[in-house]
Amino acid sequence: MIKLELDRKTIFVKEPSDVSSLQNGFYGSMNKGIITLTPEEALYIMDIRNGRCFDKSGNHYTFNQVASLFLKNKKLLAKYLTYKDWRDKGLVLRPTNEADGNYGRTILLKYESSSFEVDSFSFDGLFFPYDLITLVDDEKVAKELYERHWIGQFGTYKASHRGKIGKLDIFETIYLLRHGQLHLLNARLKDAEALAKKRIMFFPDLYSVYEDWRKRGYVIKTGFKFGTHFRLYFPGASPLKTDDKWMHSRHVIHVFPRKHKQIISEWSRAIRVAHSVKKTFILAIPGKKTQVKVNPDKPRLDFLLYHRKKGGIETPKDGTPKYLMYSLTEDEYIGGDELAQALAECSCFGLEMMMAISDRESSVTHYIIKKIDLPGSDYEYFEIEWIQP
Amino acid sequence: MIKLELDRKTIFVKEPSDVSSLQNGFYGSMNKGIITLTPEEALYIMDIRNGRCFDKSGNHYTFNQVASLFLKNKKLLAKYLTYKDWRDKGLVLRPTNEADGNYGRTILLKYESSSFEVDSFSFDGLFFPYDLITLVDDEKVAKELYERHWIGQFGTYKASHRGKIGKLDIFETIYLLRHGQLHLLNARLKDAEALAKKRIMFFPDLYSVYEDWRKRGYVIKTGFKFGTHFRLYFPGASPLKTDDKWMHSRHVIHVFPRKHKQIISEWSRAIRVAHSVKKTFILAIPGKKTQVKVNPDKPRLDFLLYHRKKGGIETPKDGTPKYLMYSLTEDEYIGGDELAQALAECSCFGLEMMMAISDRESSVTHYIIKKIDLPGSDYEYFEIEWIQP
Repeated sequence: MIKLELDRKTIFVKEPSDVSSLQNGFYGSMNKGIITLTPEEALYIMDIRNGRCFDKSGNHYTFNQVASLFLKNKKLLAKYLTYKDWRDKGLVLRPTNEADGNYGRTILLKYESSSFEVDSFSFDGLFFPYDLITLVDDEKVAKELYERHWIGQFGTYKASHRGKIGKLDIFETIYLLRHGQLHLLNARLKDAEALAKKRIMFFPDLYSVYEDWRKRGYVIKTGFKFGTHFRLYFPGASPLKTDDKWMHSRHVIHVFPRKHKQIISEWSRAIRVAHSVKKTFILAIPGKKTQVKVNPDKPRLDFLLYHRKKGGIETPKDGTPKYLMYSLTEDEYIGGDELAQALAECSCFGLEMMMAISDRESSVTHYIIKKIDLPGSDYEYFEIEWIQP
Repeated sequence: MIKLELDRKTIFVKEPSDVSSLQNGFYGSMNKGIITLTPEEALYIMDIRNGRCFDKSGNHYTFNQVASLFLKNKKLLAKYLTYKDWRDKGLVLRPTNEADGNYGRTILLKYESSSFEVDSFSFDGLFFPYDLITLVDDEKVAKELYERHWIGQFGTYKASHRGKIGKLDIFETIYLLRHGQLHLLNARLKDAEALAKKRIMFFPDLYSVYEDWRKRGYVIKTGFKFGTHFRLYFPGASPLKTDDKWMHSRHVIHVFPRKHKQIISEWSRAIRVAHSVKKTFILAIPGKKTQVKVNPDKPRLDFLLYHRKKGGIETPKDGTPKYLMYSLTEDEYIGGDELAQALAECSCFGLEMMMAISDRESSVTHYIIKKIDLPGSDYEYFEIEWIQP
């Protein structure tokens, strides 16, 4: 048994044998032979390490009696359950306010950047307002757009020789109205934009991301089959190179508008589909980049995570932290802005973000979030990977 | 070449060789040796079967010129692209207004129904308002709830011997407050309900579905890992039978509130995760069942589908239709009520629903929707299966 002592809302341990055991496990903060514990640490010791808590008069406090002292702490249980899970894996984690300086452990993922110009010939299209698709019935033009630039779908999907009509989706339609020579027989650019905005939530955000990649030479098509907004092919991809690696996209893009709050379970669903089809999931946060002032006394993120190293684990004694943990539950909502700010905090410390989501059954899922460098872009892109730490 | 003739908005074929070829393919409707085509049929013949269209004065009309005559038709392209896809598969489909009587081809999926009573002992829990979870720190009670009823998570997920705290999710919390003897130390039923309603979109709908299955003896837990609202175990399932088939859920449930309009791409994403983990996807539409008056002159659904039979295909000549097609695009929104009404229309004709979704690249995905009979339930449940027809 480990004896915890409670004084108002402070929990500490002073039995020398307990102190040394907890110190070896990197629990609490030590001062003059006494270890003071955070609520998560105290609850963990009670739940898993046979800790028992008493006040000065010797009254016993149950787990819930201790927890109830901290009910006003935001995300108490999200933090406790993700703390517990990391500890249960035999790994060490510490309070975020111990983060100090820039650990230089961030990996910046370099993406290539090319440039793209549409051919300058002009052509007509018929815009279908209900379906948000443009048809091009000039066979030569439609075929050229498809084969040279992979814009639109000529003929039939996966059978472009079958049929002779080109189909442009709403993103391609607007891109070609803005930057190419498409002329719609029955609508103007502003009509198409207004309709798209009315019909598709956050259309301007989606379109910004589409244009950002397309103008850098990437081919960007619907991600419907993979449960995301877009799928992505690197510059040089062509629908004709059937035996080539480019015929299969390896990346999908999901757009997370800054102003949109989304429930974690929905967010997670998009990542899972991508994972199940073995695609790299790219999260896009369009709009102006976040400026964050990091206040070490009021950290946004929840824990400083030590991970594994060859032959063992990292600890505060002989290593540096690798991640900052963002602790969440499946029922929480998160906005693009919020996430961008949390990610900026990670950058300041040179750490990567580990998002830990505790579901309703207290099972924890982890995602690592890595920053992408897309030269020339003003937006923020991240690769998200579902991992088992 | 097949010669199409245009008179105002009517398109017909009268060359005897064309007429007989189209008749053999089950295109159009025949009257006095002349075949009149629907817009979808005319466009298909122009796109794929080398049809060329002329007006009475001999002026040639391109594909887009013909299509532009019908731009006011709702979902014109959704209908055309899903029509084309079915035809491209060598299958036959006809206008919905030809549906006549009840074809008796619906399969009603019988689900068992048991009953469930919680043990009557009373116990305390601490409610965490921010996390919407209740902790039960009476080890005996928490263990019993978990092992006997699979309510809550005792100890650690997939390691219930580790730790001694029970975690009840918000659905379990409210169920036990309503039907069991749970007493919250820091909240009342109405507090928990109000908070859940505020925090989780459509919570009352979700809870209704939870309760509906739970009280019929099913075990219903979070579907977070599978991208759905819930996962389901049949009556008799237990977390203890580790070697038993029940340890793996085979079904997931996603709730589609009647009043909520959801973009098809999101809807589809949920089905795809379920598919990738080989679970049966159950769609739940809680609330009062839809009463539908079917008006054969104004069908809600889009096409009458003939499918395959042993050694060939079904046709209007020697078979009956099997499905009604609901044609959609990935950017369309659909509400629970709308879907329930469309499904009720299918029931009237004794046909199953084939949902056909054309994505932005004109690739079509198909889902079959089958009705579930859960004895005693007032709600509507359907199995949705992603298929390649």
